[in-house]
Amino acid sequence: MKKIHYLLFTLAGVAMLFTSCNQQGNKSSNGALSSSAAEKVYVAPGEHDEYYAFVSGGFSGQLSVYGLPSGRLFKVIPVFSQDAEKAWGYNEETKPMLNTSHGFVPWDDSHHPDISQTNGELDGRYVFINGNNTPRIAKIDLSTFETTEIIEVPNSAGNHSSSFVTENTEYVVAGTRFSVPVPQRDMPIKEYKGNFKGALTFISVAPEDGGMDIKFQLLMPGFDYDLSHPGRGASHGWFFFTTYNTEESHTLMEVNASQNDKDFIAAVNWKKIEEYVNNGGGTMMPSNYAHNVYDEHTHTATSTMKKEVLTVDPTKVPGAVYFLPTPKSPHGCDVDPSGEYIVGNGKLSADLTVHSFTKMLAAIENEKFDGEAYGIPILNFEDVLAGTVSQPGLGPLHTEFDGQGNAYTTFFISSEVVKWKLGTWEVVDRQPCYYSVGHLMIPGGNSRKPFGKYVLAMNKITKDRYLPTGPEVTQSAQLYDISGEKMELLLDFPTVGEPHYAAGIAADIVKQRSKKIFSLTDNKHKYATTSDADVRVERNGKEVHIYMTMIRSHFNPDNIEGVKVGDKVYFHVTNLEQDYDVPHGVSVIGANTSELLIMPGQTETFVWEPKQVGVWPFYCTDFCSALHQEMQGYIRVSPANSNIDLSWSLGED
Amino acid sequence: MKKIHYLLFTLAGVAMLFTSCNQQGNKSSNGALSSSAAEKVYVAPGEHDEYYAFVSGGFSGQLSVYGLPSGRLFKVIPVFSQDAEKAWGYNEETKPMLNTSHGFVPWDDSHHPDISQTNGELDGRYVFINGNNTPRIAKIDLSTFETTEIIEVPNSAGNHSSSFVTENTEYVVAGTRFSVPVPQRDMPIKEYKGNFKGALTFISVAPEDGGMDIKFQLLMPGFDYDLSHPGRGASHGWFFFTTYNTEESHTLMEVNASQNDKDFIAAVNWKKIEEYVNNGGGTMMPSNYAHNVYDEHTHTATSTMKKEVLTVDPTKVPGAVYFLPTPKSPHGCDVDPSGEYIVGNGKLSADLTVHSFTKMLAAIENEKFDGEAYGIPILNFEDVLAGTVSQPGLGPLHTEFDGQGNAYTTFFISSEVVKWKLGTWEVVDRQPCYYSVGHLMIPGGNSRKPFGKYVLAMNKITKDRYLPTGPEVTQSAQLYDISGEKMELLLDFPTVGEPHYAAGIAADIVKQRSKKIFSLTDNKHKYATTSDADVRVERNGKEVHIYMTMIRSHFNPDNIEGVKVGDKVYFHVTNLEQDYDVPHGVSVIGANTSELLIMPGQTETFVWEPKQVGVWPFYCTDFCSALHQEMQGYIRVSPANSNIDLSWSLGED
Repeated sequence: MKKIHYLLFTLAGVAMLFTSCNQQGNKSSNGALSSSAAEKVYVAPGEHDEYYAFVSGGFSGQLSVYGLPSGRLFKVIPVFSQDAEKAWGYNEETKPMLNTSHGFVPWDDSHHPDISQTNGELDGRYVFINGNNTPRIAKIDLSTFETTEIIEVPNSAGNHSSSFVTENTEYVVAGTRFSVPVPQRDMPIKEYKGNFKGALTFISVAPEDGGMDIKFQLLMPGFDYDLSHPGRGASHGWFFFTTYNTEESHTLMEVNASQNDKDFIAAVNWKKIEEYVNNGGGTMMPSNYAHNVYDEHTHTATSTMKKEVLTVDPTKVPGAVYFLPTPKSPHGCDVDPSGEYIVGNGKLSADLTVHSFTKMLAAIENEKFDGEAYGIPILNFEDVLAGTVSQPGLGPLHTEFDGQGNAYTTFFISSEVVKWKLGTWEVVDRQPCYYSVGHLMIPGGNSRKPFGKYVLAMNKITKDRYLPTGPEVTQSAQLYDISGEKMELLLDFPTVGEPHYAAGIAADIVKQRSKKIFSLTDNKHKYATTSDADVRVERNGKEVHIYMTMIRSHFNPDNIEGVKVGDKVYFHVTNLEQDYDVPHGVSVIGANTSELLIMPGQTETFVWEPKQVGVWPFYCTDFCSALHQEMQGYIRVSPANSNIDLSWSLGED
Repeated sequence: MKKIHYLLFTLAGVAMLFTSCNQQGNKSSNGALSSSAAEKVYVAPGEHDEYYAFVSGGFSGQLSVYGLPSGRLFKVIPVFSQDAEKAWGYNEETKPMLNTSHGFVPWDDSHHPDISQTNGELDGRYVFINGNNTPRIAKIDLSTFETTEIIEVPNSAGNHSSSFVTENTEYVVAGTRFSVPVPQRDMPIKEYKGNFKGALTFISVAPEDGGMDIKFQLLMPGFDYDLSHPGRGASHGWFFFTTYNTEESHTLMEVNASQNDKDFIAAVNWKKIEEYVNNGGGTMMPSNYAHNVYDEHTHTATSTMKKEVLTVDPTKVPGAVYFLPTPKSPHGCDVDPSGEYIVGNGKLSADLTVHSFTKMLAAIENEKFDGEAYGIPILNFEDVLAGTVSQPGLGPLHTEFDGQGNAYTTFFISSEVVKWKLGTWEVVDRQPCYYSVGHLMIPGGNSRKPFGKYVLAMNKITKDRYLPTGPEVTQSAQLYDISGEKMELLLDFPTVGEPHYAAGIAADIVKQRSKKIFSLTDNKHKYATTSDADVRVERNGKEVHIYMTMIRSHFNPDNIEGVKVGDKVYFHVTNLEQDYDVPHGVSVIGANTSELLIMPGQTETFVWEPKQVGVWPFYCTDFCSALHQEMQGYIRVSPANSNIDLSWSLGED
């Protein structure tokens, strides 16, 4: 039995490699079909795309902003990884954003962006995204496209079934992929079974300012929690999580975690647990996790270590958690716009399983259980089954919805998107993907009101689809028009990192919130210099603080003397411009950090520790004006024992 | 006089901001013109772009690889900045690539890519690119698209008039933008004039393996050296550099460096200097600069500190260096395909100045000089002038050539590309750019044989051209069809960082060199594990070395015990796959470094210093197969005083 599965997937992998070199898409670039596709994706110079697509960078740790239908990349928002271009994690202001209980962590693996919702519809305020490796949840403010908050998730490892939001953004949810000892302790790995736990974490989001805080952690059996989605409409108040490795294996998982015929979808009634903890339920556990907040007025982040977390034992809250048996290592866990259907994509299953929320409630009501696992009731598979999509493809992963009664599921092994009807479960169309599709995204496709029109397939392998670029070739997205009965492939476009998942939204919703003027009077940075009258250089022992301004096309001051070898020189630089799209950059030769790319109205700080005497230039790194090349200055470094006083000037011969 | 210039450019800046909000491009997305443009830039799914465009990231420090005409981004090659996605500058193998005389520098400002040439034509072997801030030149190997060599440039600051190659890639040239004391010393900034020097560095490139070495540095007067290009054809053996700040000012440069009516183009007969130094000329100067080489067989970089550099005083080599007076702070310095015309774009000049190589030689022959500057002869402006393009636009920056007798010049202030004829100097077409264009690029446009067909304009400001993304909006490129008499705007596409300059080449030349199989037998990494029989874990004091393999879909070993708090754990991980596009990634929770993204056939190393006891997971970070989610393992960390022995396994219950 073990061997059969292993062989199946080894063969599938090999088959995938072979087909990937021979298949071709829409080859005719001059035929009628291509011409039509060309026009459909072409956004003429000066016109705007219709949708934003926020595409996770996967192993880049960031969030990429694309336009649809053009597939053009507008911005990479730094989230979990250092970004030397934007000084993210390099300047003094943002270093605290990457702090964790393990210290400074310069990278993570970002997977599932989700846009904030109001009444089950996308509201365009925030995007949330999970850090997988060192478990964290980040929040990006869509008025500035900046990461403004990151909270670490304790008792977790491989924070994968995250970061999905409830219908009114009451919670952003983070579920652990790997179970671990909770609390962590020194114990033999082979004692995993029955001893490791899987934490499902509910992080509250404050309605007024979006502030995040861990409300509670549900300590579940030691399975792997893979993906999740909230209920909506009638099922609002519930959250659904797929599990695999219900075998509780700890080694050679590709074989050992694929033994059970069915794993589970965990159905969590979070409203019931919320009520439980609001009434004093749960156990406060000592813990240690970072909460990092970026203040938009001081342009400065702070990191606070939190020391405890409220945990909940699911067996202590009767009626709060149930298991829905779901065939073979279900991966995606998707809920349709009505909230009635919960789709479990058993990645090793021949069929797609769809559960019914109504039937689930009835089965719970009737207390019809098929045993329990670690005290959690297991419902009867047949009792909760809404229907089955029979043999739609190989290796189902994820499903999204168009709001017109259709579902779209990706199949990794047969490398395709399959369209099927909710309720009748019939397959109505299929289109190949090039190659090995993971997630797919319909703008708003996991809300009450999908926008429809396009589906974006995100592929893991491209091989020969683009010009070669050495051993690593780009991963890729494919855009299909779904406005008709049949899907139509429009465009292949390459992506940054791994396009793991994406969240899409109509552009107008976000555009109207976009901040464009950045007033100097709003600048509350501790070291801001908002007037040329205040520029200065101050010494405090071996620390030198330079209060500098920049405006087209000079720094003030631009000549500085009196700095000595061994000093720690802080450049606090304020950009006096106030209109968007007028940043300046600054760096000095040999700095052991990145440039600063300073946004209008803002102040940023870098540290320079000169090691050699000399006269060293600094300059503007962002081409800003016709006299950008003249935007430079010099800083003189004297020996450590020099008695040259600090002096600074602009325009003095 | 000072005030007038200052006012002019302040006004120009303001005008630019206003126009930028109102102008619109080709607005009709359904009209005939747009339809035609859509088809011209559409590369149907599965088809390949016709050209590679290697676009510098500017302040990102990297090199981006785009396809033309689609404008799609295929890869960002890490060069001068850390890249957590690819472990560049994070893993043990590549950290030495970012070493300098100032220590580890995680960022730079990359400006001018140039593709290697043979007989004056692009050969597709290498791309060179300069680091501006901490002066360096990098070489990217186009068989693997990896940065394989970086050499620091001493006695330089703001390495801007770089990195352009001679006709047979004999040299890649690096000229300093900022003059500095040479050697560096503690001296008053206001004693700049007459005391600072500008180094023009000629780096030899070994014909067989591309190895770089500084052949000599020419120590020029203390001007700012802005851009450069080699002679070709008849002028092969010469190199031309624009200068500004011949005023030798050191403060408020936007005013003080704009006083002289003419600055210079420095014409350097490098063949004469090469002969001089080959015969023992020049002065060896103590120095300190890094030479970093990445070995493709060990996948490991080494950094060597070089301790001396050969300098040349230009006044000691009669006939080697001349100054060509060129109006008002010339920026671009471009040589036409024949090698006869040297275009100097005086950025504050109303006209474009074109010098004649033939006339220059005649003037030198006749010894007709207009004085000298620091001992270097100045030629008469009129004697070397080939012609003038009269009032073509405002703020000329750069010129490229189509090989059909036409030149294309960018104008920053009037924001346009202007096409004009070599020889007659008449303007034949102009097209607006959105907005504030810097460089432009025609594939092969600075070689003997441009490919023509497209020109790419690279713009600094986009404002309203794309969907808003907060205070920072993307910079942008615009693609024009130049195959007809008039230029036609086809496409706006956003870019990574600042698209400072680009080098383009026909895709077929590069494709045929692309390496696709990476044999394990070629893996000479010191810690490679190319067979599962060799996996092991070894302790050496507090160092633990894990020799691990990865293949779809498991690690070997995947359970490790015996590691203790306070250990320094080296994961040496070998990817047993051998075909391109099958990387795996790996990381462990809480690591204070990036993931590893390990290419087929390769070994990479990261260091983990566990601070807490527990059982910690690691996993594959690059979705690799249908059982990717099962590709994980656990490592147990025991207290520092634990006596648990090292053990490791795969598949043992």
